[in-house]
Amino acid sequence: MATESVGMLDSPVLSAKQLEARLRSVGAERYHHQHPFHTMMHEGKLSRGQLQAWALNRYYYQSRIPIKDAIILSRSEDSDFRRAWRKRVVDHDGDAMQEGGIERWIRLAEVTGVDRERVMRCEGILPAVRYAVDAYLDLVKNRSFLEAVASSLTELFARDLISLRMDRMREHYPWLSDGLDYFTARLHQAPEDARFALQYVIEHAKSRAEQELAIGALQAKCDILWAQLDAIYFSYVQPGWPPPGAFRLES
Amino acid sequence: MATESVGMLDSPVLSAKQLEARLRSVGAERYHHQHPFHTMMHEGKLSRGQLQAWALNRYYYQSRIPIKDAIILSRSEDSDFRRAWRKRVVDHDGDAMQEGGIERWIRLAEVTGVDRERVMRCEGILPAVRYAVDAYLDLVKNRSFLEAVASSLTELFARDLISLRMDRMREHYPWLSDGLDYFTARLHQAPEDARFALQYVIEHAKSRAEQELAIGALQAKCDILWAQLDAIYFSYVQPGWPPPGAFRLES
Repeated sequence: MATESVGMLDSPVLSAKQLEARLRSVGAERYHHQHPFHTMMHEGKLSRGQLQAWALNRYYYQSRIPIKDAIILSRSEDSDFRRAWRKRVVDHDGDAMQEGGIERWIRLAEVTGVDRERVMRCEGILPAVRYAVDAYLDLVKNRSFLEAVASSLTELFARDLISLRMDRMREHYPWLSDGLDYFTARLHQAPEDARFALQYVIEHAKSRAEQELAIGALQAKCDILWAQLDAIYFSYVQPGWPPPGAFRLES
Repeated sequence: MATESVGMLDSPVLSAKQLEARLRSVGAERYHHQHPFHTMMHEGKLSRGQLQAWALNRYYYQSRIPIKDAIILSRSEDSDFRRAWRKRVVDHDGDAMQEGGIERWIRLAEVTGVDRERVMRCEGILPAVRYAVDAYLDLVKNRSFLEAVASSLTELFARDLISLRMDRMREHYPWLSDGLDYFTARLHQAPEDARFALQYVIEHAKSRAEQELAIGALQAKCDILWAQLDAIYFSYVQPGWPPPGAFRLES
């Protein structure tokens, strides 16, 4: 739980509007749209190798998303909830009609120049990225169900970041343009998912203590996203020392 | 499992000497004695603030050690093993006769200038340090018992690092000299513990596959130690950006 929230547990319950404002303020402060690695990406300052390192490492996150959502599915006893939430598993794993987000991410990685098999073996992924992503699975398994749902609310902030990213990628890395289908799909998937999860949190966080837990879970998720970019920046930008065994930029 | 080890599973069983040599070579390559943060420490290049950040963050690791050992205790059905292993919990938690390693680490942190309550609240710990340490708990909970024991074998390499560190700390940071009791105790505790665990691994890793799992577990543990220092270096040395909410150096 966030340190700031201790002592607030006796405070009055927030209105739906106030709770939403608090959740949005977590994003403004902690979401990874402000991370220096993203700033470099959007200013066209990343090399092809650095984009490879990013695509390769972020694949581990992408590959765990439907597992994370399956854990949440497995914890719900409500058929309506499960029916709504399972869309996320389909979005990432695909179905007979269309490929899923994982396949689209692999294509992005391929366009950067990392081959498919290497991506899928998760070879050379930074241990720190793995620990952060695994902490996300741990959160959805071991915290309350409300917190597991609330941790997905980073999707409230995804649309703006993705549309900026797509513009800047087309501008600065035109050779990447064929790899952007993942983001195109997320432009509408993320806001749909966020609306459902926000509604759920507002309805089910009835006490102030529960509201603070939900806010803390969103903050924890922001930390998990941020830590992945810290690790990538540390290894591939500055000081530029990948740990033993990790992917290395071609010199 | 380490990528290198795939394909070796049909290879002949290593002799006790060969297995020990392989384990020691993991340390030579991956143990954190070579991490640039330690190099700076030993060359006297860290500021007091950077040593505070290190002591504060490493406290989270120290605080989880007896929990990690209790998990291993809880997984053993052998009274002799448990009797031998519980020494580790006593070493870190202390008893009526003497304080334990956690208390000694808090004193080290206090000597750097962070107050005891702040240390114990784990306030401002880097999320990436937390994820790495929690990955260690996950390893001892979820991998085989042999791998849980083998992951402790970083203690084979601890004595040399600790004696170098104590010399260099007295030389470069004489104001820290009153805080070194933790290391004094570890100088004899770590080698005792390592001897027992090495013997256990040699006796119980009977097939080549098991031997490779043990080697992989030691490698995984080295990665966990290394990732903690990467996170500290990233936030407090270069580029020097602690994530939102983390401890900040006084300017």
